[in-house]
Amino acid sequence: MSKTAISNSVIRRLPRYYRFLGELETNGYIRISSRELSEKMGLTASQIRQDFNCFGEFGQQGYGYNVSDLRSEIGKILGLNKKSPMILIGAGNLGKAIASHIDFKNKGFDLIGAFDVNPELVGKTVGGVTVTDINELEAFCLQHKPSAAILCVPMTAAPAIANKLINCGVKAFWNFTHYDLRVEHSEVIVENVHLGDSLTTLSYGLNSEKHSK
Amino acid sequence: MSKTAISNSVIRRLPRYYRFLGELETNGYIRISSRELSEKMGLTASQIRQDFNCFGEFGQQGYGYNVSDLRSEIGKILGLNKKSPMILIGAGNLGKAIASHIDFKNKGFDLIGAFDVNPELVGKTVGGVTVTDINELEAFCLQHKPSAAILCVPMTAAPAIANKLINCGVKAFWNFTHYDLRVEHSEVIVENVHLGDSLTTLSYGLNSEKHSK
Repeated sequence: MSKTAISNSVIRRLPRYYRFLGELETNGYIRISSRELSEKMGLTASQIRQDFNCFGEFGQQGYGYNVSDLRSEIGKILGLNKKSPMILIGAGNLGKAIASHIDFKNKGFDLIGAFDVNPELVGKTVGGVTVTDINELEAFCLQHKPSAAILCVPMTAAPAIANKLINCGVKAFWNFTHYDLRVEHSEVIVENVHLGDSLTTLSYGLNSEKHSK
Repeated sequence: MSKTAISNSVIRRLPRYYRFLGELETNGYIRISSRELSEKMGLTASQIRQDFNCFGEFGQQGYGYNVSDLRSEIGKILGLNKKSPMILIGAGNLGKAIASHIDFKNKGFDLIGAFDVNPELVGKTVGGVTVTDINELEAFCLQHKPSAAILCVPMTAAPAIANKLINCGVKAFWNFTHYDLRVEHSEVIVENVHLGDSLTTLSYGLNSEKHSK
């Protein structure tokens, strides 16, 4: 793998390549040309070649890409061979759905704990772990050293809990709140899922489409 | 509002501006300078001025922006004054969480129905609507004409259900599946929420961070 920095836009495409290559592998593909892959993915062949060239020599003229090798290499770049310990903060509707819906182990993580302030949720099981009282968070972190956390708490609770988690050594946040973590904590890694913003963008698309007719 | 096309990257920032301006309004702000707004949002002042210039004359030299007017104008651009009828397809864990978590009316939509194949879910209430058997989908669409749908079904079920919805007049999809709707249906508006890809990207961030130390 080459040591040159991979651009953010290439990184954003890597998970999709990884998924597609996995489907191809399941369907018995041994190799695939950039043209064939581009048709399946709705990208241009030259875009695909450029992207893959960022991290090494994978294609062979007249042969294409070895599906399994390429997938495995992209998986390594994405850190999917690791299982970073992750905790869920907020086990309400959304947190519970995420914990049970996501296949953490195949995404580079291991869900090892869940926390909530609500006594009615404490003791329940979500995504294979037991919901613990938030007051036990620091003791848990000291012992189990999670490096990542899912934030599914109300916006107002987010700044204080984020501070606490960062002090406990959490480095990466999967942030479902609207709290702009990176503005105050530029040192942490944040992946935002702003469901409300996403739906608002869909509203824009639907209404600008109407306008253009 | 100017008629020039707004770039995709500006559109992506609009929901966040809209949210921030709403918070400022709640906190009693009447006006704000681009510098002040930039500090709060972690953007540059010139970025903000450029973005707002895309859709008209809002700032005044030495005055800044009128918070309420600017928010209202961005809301109109985003179509938030409309209430497009929307249905949920798939009322399992994730679909249920989304239906109950999201404030549809403030995002330009009105959730008017939910559908599932699972007889155990039919008749239950999610997000204020009753889950209906998927076999009644077409009759419902004929009568209520939803223009948007939330796809929370397994990947394998997605292509057939998307086809059916498009035939029923659905134009916009909030897509939580990994089915690449736009590859086969370039005419529809799609906003993808790929939770798995998002978590994979977080894994990349956490592991490339480790490597760089």
